[in-house]
Amino acid sequence: MNYTSAEANILVQALPYIQRYYGKTIVIKYGGNAMIDEELKRSVCRDVVLMHFVGMKPILVHGGGPEISALMRRIGKEPEFINGLRVTDAETMEIVEMVLAGKTNKGIVAIINNIGGKAVGLSGKDANLIVADKAQTEVDLGYVGQVAKINPGILVDLLEHGYIPVVSSVAIGPNGESFNVNADHIAGEIAAAVGAAKLIMMTDVPGIYRDFSDKSTLISELTAAEAQRMIESKQIDKGMIPKVEACITALAGSVERAHIIDGTAPHALLVEIFTDTGIGTMIVP
Amino acid sequence: MNYTSAEANILVQALPYIQRYYGKTIVIKYGGNAMIDEELKRSVCRDVVLMHFVGMKPILVHGGGPEISALMRRIGKEPEFINGLRVTDAETMEIVEMVLAGKTNKGIVAIINNIGGKAVGLSGKDANLIVADKAQTEVDLGYVGQVAKINPGILVDLLEHGYIPVVSSVAIGPNGESFNVNADHIAGEIAAAVGAAKLIMMTDVPGIYRDFSDKSTLISELTAAEAQRMIESKQIDKGMIPKVEACITALAGSVERAHIIDGTAPHALLVEIFTDTGIGTMIVP
Amino acid sequence: MNYTSAEANILVQALPYIQRYYGKTIVIKYGGNAMIDEELKRSVCRDVVLMHFVGMKPILVHGGGPEISALMRRIGKEPEFINGLRVTDAETMEIVEMVLAGKTNKGIVAIINNIGGKAVGLSGKDANLIVADKAQTEVDLGYVGQVAKINPGILVDLLEHGYIPVVSSVAIGPNGESFNVNADHIAGEIAAAVGAAKLIMMTDVPGIYRDFSDKSTLISELTAAEAQRMIESKQIDKGMIPKVEACITALAGSVERAHIIDGTAPHALLVEIFTDTGIGTMIVP
Amino acid sequence: MNYTSAEANILVQALPYIQRYYGKTIVIKYGGNAMIDEELKRSVCRDVVLMHFVGMKPILVHGGGPEISALMRRIGKEPEFINGLRVTDAETMEIVEMVLAGKTNKGIVAIINNIGGKAVGLSGKDANLIVADKAQTEVDLGYVGQVAKINPGILVDLLEHGYIPVVSSVAIGPNGESFNVNADHIAGEIAAAVGAAKLIMMTDVPGIYRDFSDKSTLISELTAAEAQRMIESKQIDKGMIPKVEACITALAGSVERAHIIDGTAPHALLVEIFTDTGIGTMIVP
Amino acid sequence: MNYTSAEANILVQALPYIQRYYGKTIVIKYGGNAMIDEELKRSVCRDVVLMHFVGMKPILVHGGGPEISALMRRIGKEPEFINGLRVTDAETMEIVEMVLAGKTNKGIVAIINNIGGKAVGLSGKDANLIVADKAQTEVDLGYVGQVAKINPGILVDLLEHGYIPVVSSVAIGPNGESFNVNADHIAGEIAAAVGAAKLIMMTDVPGIYRDFSDKSTLISELTAAEAQRMIESKQIDKGMIPKVEACITALAGSVERAHIIDGTAPHALLVEIFTDTGIGTMIVP
Amino acid sequence: MNYTSAEANILVQALPYIQRYYGKTIVIKYGGNAMIDEELKRSVCRDVVLMHFVGMKPILVHGGGPEISALMRRIGKEPEFINGLRVTDAETMEIVEMVLAGKTNKGIVAIINNIGGKAVGLSGKDANLIVADKAQTEVDLGYVGQVAKINPGILVDLLEHGYIPVVSSVAIGPNGESFNVNADHIAGEIAAAVGAAKLIMMTDVPGIYRDFSDKSTLISELTAAEAQRMIESKQIDKGMIPKVEACITALAGSVERAHIIDGTAPHALLVEIFTDTGIGTMIVP
Repeated sequence: MNYTSAEANILVQALPYIQRYYGKTIVIKYGGNAMIDEELKRSVCRDVVLMHFVGMKPILVHGGGPEISALMRRIGKEPEFINGLRVTDAETMEIVEMVLAGKTNKGIVAIINNIGGKAVGLSGKDANLIVADKAQTEVDLGYVGQVAKINPGILVDLLEHGYIPVVSSVAIGPNGESFNVNADHIAGEIAAAVGAAKLIMMTDVPGIYRDFSDKSTLISELTAAEAQRMIESKQIDKGMIPKVEACITALAGSVERAHIIDGTAPHALLVEIFTDTGIGTMIVP
Repeated sequence: MNYTSAEANILVQALPYIQRYYGKTIVIKYGGNAMIDEELKRSVCRDVVLMHFVGMKPILVHGGGPEISALMRRIGKEPEFINGLRVTDAETMEIVEMVLAGKTNKGIVAIINNIGGKAVGLSGKDANLIVADKAQTEVDLGYVGQVAKINPGILVDLLEHGYIPVVSSVAIGPNGESFNVNADHIAGEIAAAVGAAKLIMMTDVPGIYRDFSDKSTLISELTAAEAQRMIESKQIDKGMIPKVEACITALAGSVERAHIIDGTAPHALLVEIFTDTGIGTMIVP
Repeated sequence: MNYTSAEANILVQALPYIQRYYGKTIVIKYGGNAMIDEELKRSVCRDVVLMHFVGMKPILVHGGGPEISALMRRIGKEPEFINGLRVTDAETMEIVEMVLAGKTNKGIVAIINNIGGKAVGLSGKDANLIVADKAQTEVDLGYVGQVAKINPGILVDLLEHGYIPVVSSVAIGPNGESFNVNADHIAGEIAAAVGAAKLIMMTDVPGIYRDFSDKSTLISELTAAEAQRMIESKQIDKGMIPKVEACITALAGSVERAHIIDGTAPHALLVEIFTDTGIGTMIVP
Repeated sequence: MNYTSAEANILVQALPYIQRYYGKTIVIKYGGNAMIDEELKRSVCRDVVLMHFVGMKPILVHGGGPEISALMRRIGKEPEFINGLRVTDAETMEIVEMVLAGKTNKGIVAIINNIGGKAVGLSGKDANLIVADKAQTEVDLGYVGQVAKINPGILVDLLEHGYIPVVSSVAIGPNGESFNVNADHIAGEIAAAVGAAKLIMMTDVPGIYRDFSDKSTLISELTAAEAQRMIESKQIDKGMIPKVEACITALAGSVERAHIIDGTAPHALLVEIFTDTGIGTMIVP
Repeated sequence: MNYTSAEANILVQALPYIQRYYGKTIVIKYGGNAMIDEELKRSVCRDVVLMHFVGMKPILVHGGGPEISALMRRIGKEPEFINGLRVTDAETMEIVEMVLAGKTNKGIVAIINNIGGKAVGLSGKDANLIVADKAQTEVDLGYVGQVAKINPGILVDLLEHGYIPVVSSVAIGPNGESFNVNADHIAGEIAAAVGAAKLIMMTDVPGIYRDFSDKSTLISELTAAEAQRMIESKQIDKGMIPKVEACITALAGSVERAHIIDGTAPHALLVEIFTDTGIGTMIVP
Repeated sequence: MNYTSAEANILVQALPYIQRYYGKTIVIKYGGNAMIDEELKRSVCRDVVLMHFVGMKPILVHGGGPEISALMRRIGKEPEFINGLRVTDAETMEIVEMVLAGKTNKGIVAIINNIGGKAVGLSGKDANLIVADKAQTEVDLGYVGQVAKINPGILVDLLEHGYIPVVSSVAIGPNGESFNVNADHIAGEIAAAVGAAKLIMMTDVPGIYRDFSDKSTLISELTAAEAQRMIESKQIDKGMIPKVEACITALAGSVERAHIIDGTAPHALLVEIFTDTGIGTMIVP
């Protein structure tokens, strides 16, 4: 594209936002349809590379539900969920890990690098980034884990050298075994551990509604305490719960702002960052 | 401003250009009407600050003709020019230096810093940045000098710490005396000395014309050798000569591209950098 | 274990070898049965962690043939080979990548980290480590590639911070697509690119035989030129050819010594490094 | 000069003083006749360069009263003072800035560099070094300011690279406008902000007198509290008040000692530093 | 030596111990017969070099009693001791220093360097490492001193560059004079000053006995408080007292463990470090 | 001492010389009577500390003839010389080393540190600084060596951290044994190895005479080639030969100037450095 004066003017309007986040770490939970649609994927990755080149330090965290079930079915294994959590026997865990760390993760890395970024894909096993314990659930779900500790050293080292870390939601257990951990939770824990300035959760809906059935009740800002109460009072939708929990975790660390946005909206990341009002729902401490 | 998707899209289009000049030094000869009109000044400075924040290392070089003559007249001294060069007796030199280093330079610095950059104003005396000898001219012009040596250390040190150097066209002589040196020539010499990727000369015309009277003959690209021949054959206009000479000097160093652009066009700097075709006239080695 | 004097004496005997390789990079092509047997895997990884802690900088490179075919069969796809090379259509490539980068790679990483090393798993996509072109073969093999360029920056950065890089044999093409590249060749190219002191190829046989049918003809040392002639004269066995080619590539770089050893022998890596005579076959420039 | 043994002996006597201030920052308010007489200027600058080369980190701060009034008169404008403060309308401010930042400052820089130092001239606008607010005075004095904040980063960066900063007493306001601020006050604020070991105020008198009319009452040492009481009781002369205030400001920071000396005495700076008893008046916390 | 698999296995067993002390400083008081027997000396030095190459940071401290008395007798001077302390007149002090700093120290340095380490010998005078005052004793013992201050800077600088410091027990007094200080005490003070992880005192006995006459009462672990009580109740043997005091001093600093071992046992240092149970007597805070 | 203006003026006269040698390494062969007379020793050390604090990097090299013979006689051993070289059997070598490394070296170190420098004493054994072979002489002289290799790393590391290295003329042989090497030769070799700007040989005579019997024939400057010819033609006095050879060695490296001066003249070092004409005899490449 060749810029005209009018377009150049749009560039300089970005200056206050660029200055605000210069040198700051921003953790992005990448997920939903924005991770399925090829064109959307490329668009999100380009937004991330731009963030890097204007001085921010983005970290991407992703899961990858649909692709896991697809591969399971291809080898003749029916996915099974209890309370929204995947029943993860040893064979399933192996498939989860192959899909997340081998396919989804490297796919994102390849797109970013093709655009001109320098992405490095990590799973929670790399440098013991994400250490997990077996999740305590009513029914035994197998290799479903919960974060016990984040070792953020590898993220800090990579960011310092100008790399964009892309993290898949596989964790390492105390004996080196693999655990399937909710990617939303991982994003929140990582944001807290690296002291991110911002956590952005990409979903397929515009944000949190005071009344989910009434689209006019989208909440633009609420506090962590209010969010907690909404979870407890079941005002928050099931699929949204781990996302809001991740925000609360991050804010309990030193993260300043957490956002839930619709990742399928074009350039949602940039629109969120390059506006005063933001989009979606912002949760503050 | 709050960005829409469409505007965010314009941002990401800048990515290839940002990547191309990431970490590269760009010397800008700031001059002409873009240095007089208050709104234009602020606009140019904002462009420069943006360049800094997207990873480029801009250095500004400026002269300041009209303001010098104005102060001279205020103290009852009539400016005098021979072959376009200011006759510079000791008293005039003092005025030149006060205006350039004390007023014009600090004025630019203040605007940049007010926008959020970290500019540091320098004259050629600071850290012996620009060492000059008396210019060899037919008629004695007094303290008119020509560049003998650039000591770029202070520029390198400031850029490394994230400052934007703003350099006024006053040089230091072998005995610590001041010299009035053509700012275009200084820009060319500095670009060569710091190994800039690009030199941009801001003027009040769109570029070099093959035939100045025919506005359709604007040259978009030519080589240094061709430019040299056009000077020798007097095809190039008088006021344009030092600008073209500066470009030739820079290219004889390791500078890759030199540009002559119309600094009064809105966001001319950004439009030049953020397009494939560029604007104005580009001179290549 | 509690050391006795006799055992401590064995430790100090290692001193000359430790000193010789202190601070030196050693590339290890990990493969064969040593990558299948669980106990052997753990033993190899422990040897590698020891190498790290006594001052060497090991880099592991691995492929993973049998596991790929196994997963292919599980989804009902019959592996096909032409001249020993896997026919790799898009679906196969996806499986190759999931197995290598998602399972084999992270499995090795987890073992090393469980022992107390800090391993980081990489595929050739990460930071564009291994760039490949489509391999030129008589029959079209699909996504089978050959190394076009190694970008060793990420390896250097990780080694500098004390990480042990583990590299899977997946490469990135010019458009971000995946390529299946022979892991032996990758090991040779990486050894050359990082200026390793040593390349060690782990196989399931004791080394190169002058006459493969006569086990008494094991060659303990030969030059790259001799090795090249043995390939040309077909004295070298088919499966051994890429290993020997990798050694020749490495030696053509600045690698000092390349070794082909039997990785199934207990502590083969250490025995190779901590002896004057070495084991297996050593190829020298 | 060629040193004899006797003269060399004088050099080594300096050792205890050199050791005491090795690596320490010393802020010098340069002013009075020492800034007017050409020979004295050169002598002071040589003393400063020597201080640099024997391991101290000098920062010079200067104003420039007489030269400002001279230029004002040359353009037909009569200087006007109320309570010793210059009435500073916009036109006057412009002249103040041109003289201080363009003439006085660069003049000092040129002398230092000619002697072999590496001086860099700064005004309070450079890197927002000195931020000021409009001074609160009974009568509106226009652009007369008072220090709101010192941003010492640029001083630290320059000192670290071996430069000698020379600072003129022009400050930047919240909107990028210029303010005329008392140079004594600036020296005190800068000394406090950089954690100087010593602040030296150069004047034209030997120090503070208990009774100004009786030259035998020169005070060699007093505390900041005593100095404060002398200001309040009007025992301290009008012109001396800002100098003493600057000392009190500096001492309220972490500065260890503040001195008021006669800058016209030959090598007054060195005599102050290279003696146990010092000269002039020393104020201590 | 060429390693077999069995021997390589012994190497890898060392891994947990190597990891535990990686990057940690270990102060070793070298003394007793291990410093007399030539073969034992070489063996100890080899152990120390191994410790360095597997990532520890050893510092050796030594005295040298018997050699001092031998040289004294050669020049016809009879050694004299009061309460186990050497009467040290000026002439004796000169001999002490020549032997310790000139012979014993450089002898150890030469052995270590011959083995492939990079040792640097220091006395307490070098960089004012060990500052002493005259010891307060009932009878005047001359130049017998006690540690007043450790300046550990030179040790830190040398360790950082990979050198092995070897320190002789000569200290510097307030006027630059030499003092003979107990080497055990110096080792304890240095361990505390550098924040060592471990202090190891080499003696000629297996450790501390609850009842020295009954070899079955060797104490394997006791606290600093218990050790203090044993000194006070005279349960601890005279020669052992300064060693135990050194341990107590070290533990009062941040040293984690102090050990008294029999330095004449083969590879005693390594056996102490590379076992869980340790040898000799361990004193803990 | 309290400086007067006149004395301060003498300080600033030193500026050009200080600037010339700022950051440069200067190797000083310390010897002759300047190393015997206590007052002179203190004076030389003070000169060296001053050199350090005004930005030079001095390295002292010393031997110590008379003290060695004195100790030998005290133990009843008569010193023996052949062609001016000490016959050095094993017992003598031990004495040489004790005196040089244990007494003379630490004595100089203590004086420097007492004055406020940070000296570190080294022998050629420390970090293998001076490696020697047995000298080839007609008669076997025992442990008399000649320099085989200088390993200047430890000198560079110490200078970088602000230490003043003091080197005694003991070298290490291929098997870790000690060698007695001429200190003049060592000084020349070290000057060459560290790329010193200057080598200064302190003697007890004013320099080289064209005719030693005629004091009016002192040579102020000559070239290395001329000096070589004077050695060959035996115009140069025996004791002076190793000093002149050392100068030639240094100049054959990258040393710019070598000087032979009378170290007993007060402040001879400073007078040499702080004059244009120098004192004594200067040898140039």
